[in-house]
This record gives sequence, C-alpha cells and structure tokens, in this order.
Amino acid sequence: MPDSESMKSRHILPNYRIAVVGSGAVGCYYGGKLAQYGRDVHFLMRSDLEHVRKRGLKILSKQGDFHLQKVNAYATTEEIGPVDLVLIAMKATANEALDTLIPPLLKADGSTMLMTLQNGLGNEEYLAERFGAENVLGGLCFVCLNRIEPGVIHHIGHGKIEMGEYSGLPLPRTWEIQGDFKRCGVVCSVSPDLGLAHWRKLVWNVPFNGLAIAAGGIDVGQILADEDLLYLTRGLMHEVIAIAKKLGHEIPVSFAEKNIENTKPMGAYLPSSVIDYLEGREVEIEPIWGEPLRIGFNAGAEVGRLEMLYHLIRRLVVRRQRDED
Amino acid sequence: MPDSESMKSRHILPNYRIAVVGSGAVGCYYGGKLAQYGRDVHFLMRSDLEHVRKRGLKILSKQGDFHLQKVNAYATTEEIGPVDLVLIAMKATANEALDTLIPPLLKADGSTMLMTLQNGLGNEEYLAERFGAENVLGGLCFVCLNRIEPGVIHHIGHGKIEMGEYSGLPLPRTWEIQGDFKRCGVVCSVSPDLGLAHWRKLVWNVPFNGLAIAAGGIDVGQILADEDLLYLTRGLMHEVIAIAKKLGHEIPVSFAEKNIENTKPMGAYLPSSVIDYLEGREVEIEPIWGEPLRIGFNAGAEVGRLEMLYHLIRRLVVRRQRDED
Repeated sequence: MPDSESMKSRHILPNYRIAVVGSGAVGCYYGGKLAQYGRDVHFLMRSDLEHVRKRGLKILSKQGDFHLQKVNAYATTEEIGPVDLVLIAMKATANEALDTLIPPLLKADGSTMLMTLQNGLGNEEYLAERFGAENVLGGLCFVCLNRIEPGVIHHIGHGKIEMGEYSGLPLPRTWEIQGDFKRCGVVCSVSPDLGLAHWRKLVWNVPFNGLAIAAGGIDVGQILADEDLLYLTRGLMHEVIAIAKKLGHEIPVSFAEKNIENTKPMGAYLPSSVIDYLEGREVEIEPIWGEPLRIGFNAGAEVGRLEMLYHLIRRLVVRRQRDED
Repeated sequence: MPDSESMKSRHILPNYRIAVVGSGAVGCYYGGKLAQYGRDVHFLMRSDLEHVRKRGLKILSKQGDFHLQKVNAYATTEEIGPVDLVLIAMKATANEALDTLIPPLLKADGSTMLMTLQNGLGNEEYLAERFGAENVLGGLCFVCLNRIEPGVIHHIGHGKIEMGEYSGLPLPRTWEIQGDFKRCGVVCSVSPDLGLAHWRKLVWNVPFNGLAIAAGGIDVGQILADEDLLYLTRGLMHEVIAIAKKLGHEIPVSFAEKNIENTKPMGAYLPSSVIDYLEGREVEIEPIWGEPLRIGFNAGAEVGRLEMLYHLIRRLVVRRQRDED
C-alpha cells in the first residue's frame, strides 16, 4: 500500500471538490458525512432542494445524529461546475439522465473520477461507455438507510463502502479516496476485484430483495420464518454463486449460509427495493435481476430460479405501473 | 390390436360392475356417461349423496345435456361390494382414504382393476404399493369440467381419456375398457407408455395451473396476454420436457409451442387447481409440482424453475390454510 502522506501531496487531497448526483438517502448520507468533516461537497438536488437550502440536512443515526446547517445544494450540474470526484447515487433506472448531468462536472484535463454508488450490475459499464472506463470507480454500499422526510435521512445500520476501479486493480487514487472517506467516519475498503464484489453482494440482494417483492412486499424476517421462502433463498444464492463461478469469480458455497446467518439479526428489515415497490416508486429490476440473468444465461450457467424471479417481479411492477396509469 | 368381439366374450364385458370412488366433477362426468349407456355403475358419494339419491345426476354439455334419474349412490364402499373396475377420481390430496375405501371393492380372485383418473404423478404408485402393480391402470383426463351445484356437472369442453397400464404395455383388458368407454361416448385412447403420457400432460399443467396460482389466481388467457408470464410458461415447458428426456421420455421441444397454440382458444379458462385455490379447497400441489420436482432433481435435471414455482405455490396455499385456522 502506498504511503498515504506522500499520496496526499501528490494527488487530489485535501482540497478536492466533490459532487453528489442523486441526493436520495445514499447520496445525502455519504455526501453528508464528507461535508460534516469539512470536505467541499456539492449536492445536485431535485425535490428536496428548497427545503435543504433553508433548513440543511439532518442525519439521524445511532452512531450520532448530525445536522448540516449550510449545504451546497443545486438544481443543475452547470451550477456546480467541474469537480474532482462525482458520487453517483441516483436510482439506476434513471441512468439516461447522466448523459446530460455528468458533462458539466468534468474537468478539462480528463481527471474527474466517477464513482457509482448504485445497486447491481451495469452502472459502471454505463459510465464507462460514455465517459471512458479509466475514470470509473464502483462503490458498493452495505448500508440500511431511509429518507424519512425532505432533508432528513435515517441511518438504520451498517454503512460500509467497498470500492474498486472498474478497469482493473486499485490505483493510488483508490487508496487515497478510501483513506479520506475513513477520515470522515465512513467504514470503507478497497476491493481488488469489483466484479467479484458485485457478485458477492448479489448473493444477498437477489433473494432478499427479490423474494420480498415477489411475495407481495414482506420483510427479511418474514422470508427467514417461511420454510418455502428460506428454501428458495438458498436455491437462489447457490444459483448466483454458480453463475459467478462461470464468470471466474470464486465465491465459496458456505457464503450463502453466512449471509443467511447475518440476516437473522436484521429482524423486520425491509430492503430498499421492497420499500420502492410498496411506495410505488421505480424498482431497480434490471441491475439487480435482469443483468445478472442475462450475463449468467450468456455464460451458459443455470439461471432458472433467477429467470422466474426476474419475470415475476417485472410483471408485478409493470402491472402496478399500468394500474396507476 | 386384438379382435374386440373375441375379447368381449373372453373378458370382463358386457356385465362388468364399475365403482366410482370420489364423485366430484370427473367421477360424476365419466361415471355418468357410462351409466347413461346402461353400464352397471356405483358411485361412492359424500356431500352430494342425499341430493343425488333424490334427484339424480345432471350433466350439462354442449354435446348434449343428460339427466340420470336413478343413480346408484352409496355412502360406503362396503355397500357397493366387489367390482370389476374401480375408477378413482378423488382429489389426490386425500389418497390416504383409499387405504380403507378400496379393500371392500376388491374381488376375491384378485381381478379388480384400479384405474386412477387423478392428476399428476404418484397416484398409480400409491395404488400399486398397496394393492399390487399388476391391476393398476392410469387414465389421464383432458377435460374441462365444473361441479356447479350438488348433482350438477358442467362439461365445458374436451373430454378425452388417455389410458394405460401402470406396469407396462397395454393388455387385452386395456383395449377392452377403451372400446367400451368409446361405445359410451367417451373419447379415449390407449397409451403404450403411461409415464410419457403423464409428462406430456405436465408440459401444460405445470405452467398453466402453476403460474395461474402463483400470480394470485388468474386464467390462462391472462397468462398468455402477459409477456413475462408467457416467457415463464415457455421456460417451464422446456424444463419439464428436459426432465422427461432425462427419464427416457422423448417429447419434442416443438410440443411446447403446440401447447401454447392450443391454449389460445380456451380464453378465460380457469384450470381446476386455480379454482380449488380461489375457492379455498385443497390444491394438488404434490402430484403436479412436488413429485415432478423431486423426480427431476433425483435424475440430475435442471429444476430451478419448477423449484421456484412449487415453493411459491406451496407458500401461498399453506399461508391461506393458516389464515383460515
């Protein structure tokens, strides 16, 4: 690992500008932590803009509540201008908006880093195709958050970010960002293999987000308490692990059981996709189930369970949207 | 094919006694057809017993309504006594009752034939284990029926029985029964391979009964009209065909598409399991999904789609039963 003091002088820190694009629970929480520690954070906001400009941002957390009185909140990325690091925390279903939101944030020297904090597969690829793979990073968030009212985020638990370079092994900048996030109280690790990290996260997300929606909107405790859904949870986890293996990502089979054990203390936790589903918001179907299904199918893996789950969820969400229209 | 005249004299016809065990829609319809043509049919009845004794049995059908004024209806199989042929048309979920219902119907010479008209897999095996494989026949019913009130059956369409010997190739008696059923207006064929016939029927039953329940109780027209459910229908059909192949039953892949085409004219048809589900009656989960899943799994076939479907249905039905308790 490089010496962090020398990196600091050679690299982006300490005065780097950060933009947060998509200021929902994830964007506000992590951007808020960085701003709390004096980092130069600029939030692109939509519905909460006026509220946050007037009253700031509140994070309620067992680790300590905090209130940012003055927040740099903007309606457009043109007002923010070029930055060193963009944290992308929009719903992945709205990725098309990035085509116009990102360019005003890019520095002329091409050094702006784009770190997607979004769920599932396909987001790094989306950015890489449009803005160049070399500046894309992924940050996998293991965190339970809820936006409970405008400008107020409830941090329920966890909070780790597992970050990595889209195009390969970690670079000095990767460690540098990790170090700075840690100084701001964000638990954070660097992954040498972002693809593997994504598939490990999917081992949990595919069954728990998926079955909770397919069963009509239930919590993880209800999944664990139902012998049929618990059986399907294991089947889906093993299927995801086998797809990952086909792609060259080794995940031990015991990781499934470990995930189930780790879920027990969560109790009646509702995964974010389930809340989106229940509250009539868009659900990130493609990144969490569609992309893994297509990638697994193309790799020649067994994908029957994932196929059933994807289409049952897709039907429920499509039908709900049709009912609303 | 043997000469049917010589069979008639050598074998059971024309004065054979028939018992119908389980007088729901299937038992009343086929037993009724045989009785209409003068066959010596004896019905074991439960809820409809008094009604049928007083008012007889009515079959409403596009092929011609008919009313049997006088029906041999009984409360016990002891009252019926030994017969030549037992038609078993109970819900497969109640198979344990056969342990006591069948013995009074068996002739001392061991020649009583037991033909199960029940759905799915495992019913011939159940009879064979208890009463000897050599007298067990299967009759697969391709028919749309509804019991609309006590003693009144609505024949909506189709009606064919595909019959075969459990223990191997057709015997003279198999052709003989077929011939007699045909004389009574029952469209009927003899299958040289009952196992294959079952798996061919499952190609339709697994997805259409299954998805209709898993989607909350919809009809086959709604499945065909939904692109996600239609996709899953094909996936499930192909999985069932591949399981059958592992077991040595060759079903062409084109059979899936043919089944989908044949379903289109059915319109808003609700498969029997779905009506059972919607009306709070027991659903034949094990014969239609559980047994095929276990058999496929043990044969080393891919069973992911079937596994998802089985456990999602099982959960819905178990939950409903729990809600009722």
